[in-house]
This record gives sequence, C-alpha cells and structure tokens, in this order.
Amino acid sequence: MTLLQYTPLTPAHRNNVFSKMVQHSGLVYLRGGVTQERLNTDTEINFRQESMFFYLTGVQVAGYELILDLSTKKSLLFIPRTDADHEVWCGKSPTLQDCKEKYLVDEVYYVDEIEAFLEKASEIHFSIAITESRVIKSEGEIAILREAARISGEAHIALMKKVKPGLNTERQLHALFEYECFRQGAQYQAYTPIVASGKAGATLHYTKNDANLTPNKDDMLLVDAGCELYCYASDITRTYPVGGKYNGDWKTTYEIVLETQKVVLNALKPGVKWEDMHRLSYRTICIGLQMAGILVGDTEELIENHIPALFYPHGLGHFLGIDVHDCGGYQPGVERIQEPGIRYLRMRRTLEANMVVTVEPGCYFVDALLDPAVKDPNVSKYFNLEVLERFRKNVGGVRIEDDVVITENGIDNLTGWIPKTIEDVEKIMKQD
Amino acid sequence: MTLLQYTPLTPAHRNNVFSKMVQHSGLVYLRGGVTQERLNTDTEINFRQESMFFYLTGVQVAGYELILDLSTKKSLLFIPRTDADHEVWCGKSPTLQDCKEKYLVDEVYYVDEIEAFLEKASEIHFSIAITESRVIKSEGEIAILREAARISGEAHIALMKKVKPGLNTERQLHALFEYECFRQGAQYQAYTPIVASGKAGATLHYTKNDANLTPNKDDMLLVDAGCELYCYASDITRTYPVGGKYNGDWKTTYEIVLETQKVVLNALKPGVKWEDMHRLSYRTICIGLQMAGILVGDTEELIENHIPALFYPHGLGHFLGIDVHDCGGYQPGVERIQEPGIRYLRMRRTLEANMVVTVEPGCYFVDALLDPAVKDPNVSKYFNLEVLERFRKNVGGVRIEDDVVITENGIDNLTGWIPKTIEDVEKIMKQD
Repeated sequence: MTLLQYTPLTPAHRNNVFSKMVQHSGLVYLRGGVTQERLNTDTEINFRQESMFFYLTGVQVAGYELILDLSTKKSLLFIPRTDADHEVWCGKSPTLQDCKEKYLVDEVYYVDEIEAFLEKASEIHFSIAITESRVIKSEGEIAILREAARISGEAHIALMKKVKPGLNTERQLHALFEYECFRQGAQYQAYTPIVASGKAGATLHYTKNDANLTPNKDDMLLVDAGCELYCYASDITRTYPVGGKYNGDWKTTYEIVLETQKVVLNALKPGVKWEDMHRLSYRTICIGLQMAGILVGDTEELIENHIPALFYPHGLGHFLGIDVHDCGGYQPGVERIQEPGIRYLRMRRTLEANMVVTVEPGCYFVDALLDPAVKDPNVSKYFNLEVLERFRKNVGGVRIEDDVVITENGIDNLTGWIPKTIEDVEKIMKQD
Repeated sequence: MTLLQYTPLTPAHRNNVFSKMVQHSGLVYLRGGVTQERLNTDTEINFRQESMFFYLTGVQVAGYELILDLSTKKSLLFIPRTDADHEVWCGKSPTLQDCKEKYLVDEVYYVDEIEAFLEKASEIHFSIAITESRVIKSEGEIAILREAARISGEAHIALMKKVKPGLNTERQLHALFEYECFRQGAQYQAYTPIVASGKAGATLHYTKNDANLTPNKDDMLLVDAGCELYCYASDITRTYPVGGKYNGDWKTTYEIVLETQKVVLNALKPGVKWEDMHRLSYRTICIGLQMAGILVGDTEELIENHIPALFYPHGLGHFLGIDVHDCGGYQPGVERIQEPGIRYLRMRRTLEANMVVTVEPGCYFVDALLDPAVKDPNVSKYFNLEVLERFRKNVGGVRIEDDVVITENGIDNLTGWIPKTIEDVEKIMKQD
C-alpha cells in the first residue's frame, strides 16, 4: 500500500498571505493548538492542530507558535523547549534545525523567546487574509483532498459490501468505516459519522449509530462519513437499500435526489453563485416531489410558500478543506438569507476555479416538520396526504453527497467514482 | 454477540456521597461536560462525559447539571431544553419523565431553572467525598471493568495473531486494536494506544505509532492499550516478539519483568501499602538486572543509589476506574516521594478490598537515561558495560500490565487470562 506523503505546502500558503497583506506592516501572530486533557484528569485528548495554524505551518504537534514578519516576508516558527525527562517519556524532540528543514521556515526559536519579538512589533495582525487564502486550493491541497476522498470512498464501498438486513448494527458499520480509513493512514474522521438505518435517516445529524440495522430489505441506510488526511477533510454521503435492491417509494425518493444532484453538478462552473445553485436544487426537489405525487399545485407557488423546505430543510453544500465546513463561506457584509432551508446554507459566494465544495441535496420525511405541516390547512393543501403518509411511513431520508473541485470549465468530482447510480450501487452490493 | 448492558449504578453512588457528607447541609452542585468544537470551527469534538458527573448520574450526553440536596437526600437532574429545530437535526429529545426513569433521580428540571435552586441554598459544596466514594468500586462497577478488560483482551489477542515481522505497520495494528474494541461496543479508548516496535519500546509514552514493524523477528512489540466501556477504563500492556518466539536478551528482559509482576501480584491484599509494592517491584527488577549481568555490586547499594530507576523509571501502577488514572491516589496531606522512579508513582494508599489497580512493572533501555549514566563514573561503576551495551543495542523495553481488583484475601486479576507467560504467548502467536 502506497500512501500519499505529505509535503509541506506551507511556503506557498504563507506567500499567499504576504501578497494579500502587502499594504500592511508589523507581524501576523498565530498560536498553534495546545495539548488538552479531559476535565479534571490527566487523560490527554487526541491532538488535532488548529486549522489556520496548520494551513500556514503544516505542524501537527502541540505547543508551536508562528510569526509572519510582513516587512521582511520572513516566517518565524517557535517550538516548545523540552528537557531530558520529556525525552524519557515521549522520545527525542526535534531540534531547531530539524524544524527549519521540516517546515521550510526562515527561522526557528523556542516559544519562551517569542515575547521579545512581539514586544517590538509595530502592529500585530490576526488576519482574515488567511481565510481568503484558504478559499482557493492549491494543486497540492487538491491532491490531498483527492487522496482523503479515495480512502473514504473505499471505506464506503466496504460498507456497501458488508450490509445485510438485520445482520449488522449501525455501530459495527461505523466501526468498520473508521477502521478502513485508519488502516490506510487516516486516523481521524473529519466529523462524527452518520450511520442511519431506516427511519433514522430522517434525523439530519443522527450520530448515535446505536440501533440494529433495519430487518426490512427495502429500507435504506444513509451513511454520511469522511476521513481526514493530513488535516484535510472528505465529506461523502451515500444512501442504499440494506437488501441491495432499490424498490418502491425508497427508489422514487432516491431518484429524486440523484436527479437533483446531477442537475447541480452539470451547472457548476466559475462565475455561478452558490445560492443560485441551492435554489436550483430546491426547485428540482420540488418538481420531483410533484412528480412522485406527494406535492400538488403550482411549482412557483410551492416554492414561494417554502413547501419543499419541509422535505429538504438544509443547504446544498459548503466549502471543504482543512475543516469539513471550511472557512470563508460568507465574506464580511454578506448575510444569510432568512428563509426556510436556505438559511442553513453555509456559503454565499460566486464560484471560482480551485474552490472545493460539497454538493449534497437531500429529501427526508421528518416527523418534527411534517406533524405540524399536515395539521396546518395552509400547508396541507399542497399535500396529497395519502401519498405523503405512505412515503413517510416507509422512507427515512436520502442524501447523496460528493466533493468537487471547481475547474476552469466545470468540475472535477473527487468522489463521483463511488457508486451512486442505482445500477452501480446494486452491482457493488452483490459483491462480497 | 451479547454486550453487557449498562444499568445505572448511580443511586448507590449518590448514597455513598450522602452518607459521607452526613455532617453537612446545603447542596452539592456539579456541571456535566458541554459540547466542544475544534478551535474556530463548528466541528464537534467527540463528547465524553466529565468523570465525576458520570459517576453520579450515568449521563453520557452534554449539557446536564446535578444537585444533591444534603438535607432531603434528593437528587435533582437538570437537562437542556431543546426546540423543534433541534429535533429536525438531532432527533427527539428525552422528556423530563424519560430522564427521571432512565437516570433514577428524584426530580428533573430544565437547566434554565437551576439558578433558583442554587440561589436559595445555604451552602454549595464541590466535594472530595465523591473522590473517596469512587476509590472503592461496587460490584456493578467491577462488572463493567471486567467487560472492558474482556473486550480489550480479545483485541490484544487479535494483534498477537496478526503480527508478522516487517509486514504490518504500527498504525495498522493500532487501527486494528481500536476496531476490535469498537465493533464490540467500546467506541473510545481509555487513552491513546502505545504500539511500539523494537527500540521504540524504550519511549515510555510512545504514541506516534507511525513506523513499520521491525523486520527482526527477535525484536519485540510493546502494546499498551485499553478501551473504555460505559466510561470505565481498561489499561493493559503486553510485550511480545514479532517473530512469535522469545529469544536471547529480549527473553531475559521479558523474564525479569514477568517475574517482577508475579511477585507483586502474589503480595497484593488489603492492608498492604502501595509504595511498599512499588519498592518490592523495584527490588525485584534490580535483582533481575544483576542476574542478567547488567548490574554489578550489592543490591542494597544499587537501590540506595537509585540505579534500578535508570531501567524502571516509572511507578508500579495506579487506580483504575472511570478514569484510566483514577482519582484518589493521594489523599490530602500525602506527598509524592521525591526519589527517582517512585516520584512518578500515582498513588500512595493502603489497599482495601474493592480498590482496582493496575500492576505494570517495566524494564527499558532508554538512551536519554543511559547516555549520561555511562559517562558518570559514580554510576557506570555499577554497570557491566559490555553486557549493558549488548542489551541496549537489542532491546527497547518490556512492560507487562494487568488490571486487578483487591479482594478480601488477595486479588481478582481481570486481565490475567490474556496470554503473558512465554509458553502462552508463543502458542497464541502460532494461531491465525
């Protein structure tokens, strides 16, 4: 097994920041994450670097600090000073020179020396230039995101092959997903996996994963899971029938979401506004629900009255990078749109090449939304109640989520190869 | 697979506290853990309850609070108030009545109601009575500790069967250990596993686990790992040759530690002082090193000059419970003994029945300790340098660690069944 090696991308990242801050003088100062323990104990919590600091340094250990000198364009890294006792317990610490070579910075000092630098600074910045720099991914970053997606994709496929109605538990599948990622080098998940069987698929952030798998072969399993590799996230959802074959209302719901995702993926390119893409997905879900016989009436009227948001209550997707919900979704001065569904949209930006986003439309039958809706005559008049109740009884929810890079002409879908058409999923689920 | 179910042990735990605080009035007030995100992000960190709060409530979700009313002996649980939006994203929240039944408390309110209770209290305690209560484990607690040990033990055995010189990486074995625990229901590790191959075994807290497995079949792998089940820890170490057969200096070092552990296990019983047990293990390691030809001179003189601490620089063991290094090791007024090795001892208590401790002597060849030692004539005079250098070149370190309950007459070793004699380990490593 050959694992992609991490090579420091950070000199280029720091140069991005220098060039965005050319009007400024003084220092940019960042503290890396520090070791944390569980409350009132000495049990260390697994360390994960603060994302801004990782972006600029590549450092994955605790207690480091960084200064970017805007006048000299030099990067100064500050590392913890350790003693012989530390070596006995934790092994040899890297020297100043080791760190200079490993992290490709100009100068390295110990953290106890940083005050002298900060004291004599004319200005100290904690800059949003870093956020804007992170929004556009470099080739190196995209290579890591692709590798994270590859590992997660293989783990998704392992689950597709493993699932049998009633035989596994959600927890076992959750465990298997993490194992498949970890053994390929991705120790951490980018977020808590969602492994939701049957009606649990209707809970958007279901992370309990503590039920037995539904025994009904037509019921679906929704798996929203992605590993983190070298601090870069993947974020992938697939939904499939535990019995290996899409049927009935489950199949109809799946087709609505699959078609919606396809429509959006085909429309993505530089210059497009993300909120327009959300509205496109929203409209497509609406039409799908009309064709399925669940919603009745005029499409424009349904949309105007926010009816589709009862079935698709979240945003289309978000930036992806060092964080699963990567920074920069809203630039200063841009506000969220205060309407159902779209108010959860995590970004409003005009797309540019080398942005990386998730595309994750969904369709759910959520009691907490539908119970009051069917009782409200102003809302229920848009429902065919008989059809709605039939779907609602059977189907939890469907989400299909890919990670895509915006290219000059369209997209590069990092996760499109993971089975999602009905034919491809059914084929892979037959394999052992 | 039948998993031990968690039944609330907490009414008995709360009664322990009430009876220890019978002289006091007013309230005992505890806040449970709250949800945390990674710095500057919305990525939630896996939630693990604060240990004191778990001990008294059994609650494994965030945002709860507790009042023990010392006058009425009533337990009041306060739970977060959630809205319909929360239900869409996270599913149905339990009702006040649900929580009353689940956690067996007297009264349940919402956390936004707690101030009224605290305001009218005569005294508010944050009590060490809870620490002392946690030191003596109940039957129910021991049952969970036994089950955690069973799961971890089976995971250790899975690794023993999997190891092949040069074929695995430390990371793959680390991943396998976590998977074997997780698929049996233990999602979290009680601490970061140590999977140290070859010389890495000399780093006491080696947790990088990022090397290929040593290709030398005589080299050993040290695995110190234990899962957490229902917030109760296990903590187990086994050390074995990657080639499946103990040989040469590796075998000698292993036998020293195995004998040392056996001597201590045989001596444990109520009334014994833990620091005396440490000293017993220390003396036994010393004699072993003398018999191996590494140390020369009089045993008493070697001990007086702290020579064995160069090879056994840590403490014998610690309390085990809801925390891996469980609370109560030092009662108020008891200080650490400021001598090499024993100053790291995490407890100084007279043993009582139903205390649970780890017994984990070790013997290591640590460059950071031995480099200065061989240069110091006052120390190196106790070494047979030729033999020492031979061992040091080959052997990293050996630790053998079991989790034991102190009984009326001796011990109940929760992990003694996990292979550790040379015969048993070699036998199991032959199996696939």
